[in-house]
Order: sequence, then structure tokens, then C-alpha cells
Amino acid sequence: MARRGNLFIVSAPSGAGKSSLIGALLKDKPADMQVSVSHTTRAPRPGEQDGVHYHFVDKAAFEALIDQGAFFEWAEVFGNYYGTSRVTIEQTLDRGIDVFLDIDWQGARQVKALMPEAIGVFILPPSREELERRLNSRGQDSADTIAARMADAVTEMSHFNEYDYLIVNKDFDTALAEFSAIVLANRLHLAGQKSVHGDMLDDLLAG
Amino acid sequence: MARRGNLFIVSAPSGAGKSSLIGALLKDKPADMQVSVSHTTRAPRPGEQDGVHYHFVDKAAFEALIDQGAFFEWAEVFGNYYGTSRVTIEQTLDRGIDVFLDIDWQGARQVKALMPEAIGVFILPPSREELERRLNSRGQDSADTIAARMADAVTEMSHFNEYDYLIVNKDFDTALAEFSAIVLANRLHLAGQKSVHGDMLDDLLAG
Repeated sequence: MARRGNLFIVSAPSGAGKSSLIGALLKDKPADMQVSVSHTTRAPRPGEQDGVHYHFVDKAAFEALIDQGAFFEWAEVFGNYYGTSRVTIEQTLDRGIDVFLDIDWQGARQVKALMPEAIGVFILPPSREELERRLNSRGQDSADTIAARMADAVTEMSHFNEYDYLIVNKDFDTALAEFSAIVLANRLHLAGQKSVHGDMLDDLLAG
Repeated sequence: MARRGNLFIVSAPSGAGKSSLIGALLKDKPADMQVSVSHTTRAPRPGEQDGVHYHFVDKAAFEALIDQGAFFEWAEVFGNYYGTSRVTIEQTLDRGIDVFLDIDWQGARQVKALMPEAIGVFILPPSREELERRLNSRGQDSADTIAARMADAVTEMSHFNEYDYLIVNKDFDTALAEFSAIVLANRLHLAGQKSVHGDMLDDLLAG
């Protein structure tokens, strides 16, 4: 029997390096890991692929999914629907694939309420100074803009306590190794290993 | 504040490669990992160092430790005492050092009963054939001897369900990477990270 995948909820303040870490983890497109892909009713932009960047569906299909309770969360933004499909995630997990859900603390709470077995990983910057530097590094931002970003970051970080693991992204390679270790270790838990190695265990324990 | 170390209980049937895996994990003598060292009243053999191979103590000292309830388990074998000191392990954990306790399923149960936070890791051989091969590889053993070893191995393996993680030692390097990932991931749990990074978190979350 195949191992069921694990669902990882990954949150961080802007500037902590979350997207880079997830990107690096999935860089070689491992067959047993993928980022959760949202559903949307907006039109694909040039270069966007169905099933990769989004699951592109029409409004009727999206509303049918809402009625089926398929979404963890959904929202309408500028007339388009966006949603995270629990059904799609469950199907992916059932195929033995670990799924990474890149969401904020509010989304994390909703997912955890519905799937308590989801594993929360919170990524932190190493210091306030470094975070300020990263939040300003994209250009010539005003002090007010940076202060507003910092306030958002502090709000997000204030929820670190709701996650299972903390990674401090001081050195990128170290943080990536830590992230990988969390993913690998969670595959080695008793329950998952029993489902993967059931036949082997039967063989080993035969009288 | 320093992180408290984790206590790993490592069990396996003879032939699974447990000693080699623990040895490889600690090969470079990392400052933050060590194997639990037992107490004994027997005399040191040539080359044995106090605190490395055993804590060598006299009978009166050992009995005083028994009276203090210092041991998880102790036994008298051919007139000498042997014991695993919970006090010594707790002191080592308090210094932020992960401790590896190489014991069988019975010892594991005793330790888990007293320290439920201990993390159980069970190492399995990849198949019955391979286990038989390993159990016979030390020399020219009789079929009876091998059968007896296999029966002991099956008894030990029948308790795999009582552990938190399973490692299948098919390929040594893979098994070692898995073991390392388990150790690292367990350092990244919220509680431990909070104690290591308390000042940083205060700094990040300051209003």
C-alpha cells in the first residue's frame, strides 16, 4: 500500500524567505511533493498552465464546488473566485504525495480545524533588523510603507505558536536542510511506515 | 536559554545495523549528541574509560543510587551491577545534548513509562532473507543457532508498534540520512525552538 502524503501548512511573514525555501525544496520536481494549486475563475495569463499555476474553472463549476463543500476557504476578489480545494488536496495526499500549502495564519487555522493532522511549519527571519532590510530591499520604499509591512509581519509572526515546527531562516542552506529534515522525518512516523512496509513487516514477523 | 536535548530510545533486532547507525551518527563526536553511558560496578577492562564506556562506580555508590531511585533500570549480572541512570540522562539533556539510549523493547517500555517524551526509533532489516544472512555472517553457525537468533529477532521486532519512528535499513546511507533527519526535525519543534530563540522572538514581536 502507498504511504499517504503529509499536508504541510507553511506560513511566514513577508521577508522570511518562505517562497524561496518552498521553491528550493521542490526545485527538482520530486514526484512525491507538490505545492497546493488553487482553483480560480479568472482567465489564465500568458504562460500560466492549468493544474500548475491554478486549476482554471468557470464560474458554474466553481459554484458547484462551493455547494459540495470542496473548499477549505474561498473568496471572491474583483469578481473572480479563488479557493483552496480540500478535495483536490485529499486526492493528492491519497496518491502518496506530500502537499505544501503556502498560506497565512488565518488560512492555517481554517485548515487545521478541518485537518488536524496537517503539519504546521512557520518560517522566521533571524532578527528585526534583517527583516526590515529584506522588507526594504525591493526598492526605494518610504518609511511609512516599510513600517506598514513591518506591522503586517509582526501580526503574522505573532501566531508562530500555532505551528508544529519553527525554522529560523538565518542561513538559507541551513534552513533548507531543516525544512527537508522535517519533511523526511514525518515520512518515517510509525503509521506511514506501516502502510508502506506492511508486506515486509508481515514477512519479518512470520513465526 | 539552551534547548533541552531529546532522548531517543533506539531498538532493533540483532542484525538490523543499529550499532553501526548510531556509530555513524555520532562519528564526528558532535557536541550536542551522545550515547547514554551506563553505570557499572565491574572493573574497567583495558582501554575502557570512565564516563565513555561506563560510569565505573563501587558497590556502595551504586546501591546509594538505587536507593535514590536514580536508575531507569538496573540488574545484577555475575555479581556486578549494571544500570541506566535517569539522573545522568536528565543532566545531559539539560545541557542541550540529545541522548541515544540503545536498549531493547523491555527497556524501552520502562523508559517510556517514566519519560513519555522520549522518542522511540525502531530499526528494521529490509527482509527476512537479509536478516538471516546478517545473523549468519559472523561465522559458521549451526542451523539451530541461527534459528534461535531469528526467534529472538522476531520477538524484538514484534514490538515495533511501540515506537514513534521506523527506519528500514536496506541501504545504509539512506537509513543514516533518515536517522539524522529524525534527530534534526525533533530539534525544530515549537517548544524547543521557543527556548532557544526566546530573545529573538521577543525582538521580532516587539510592537
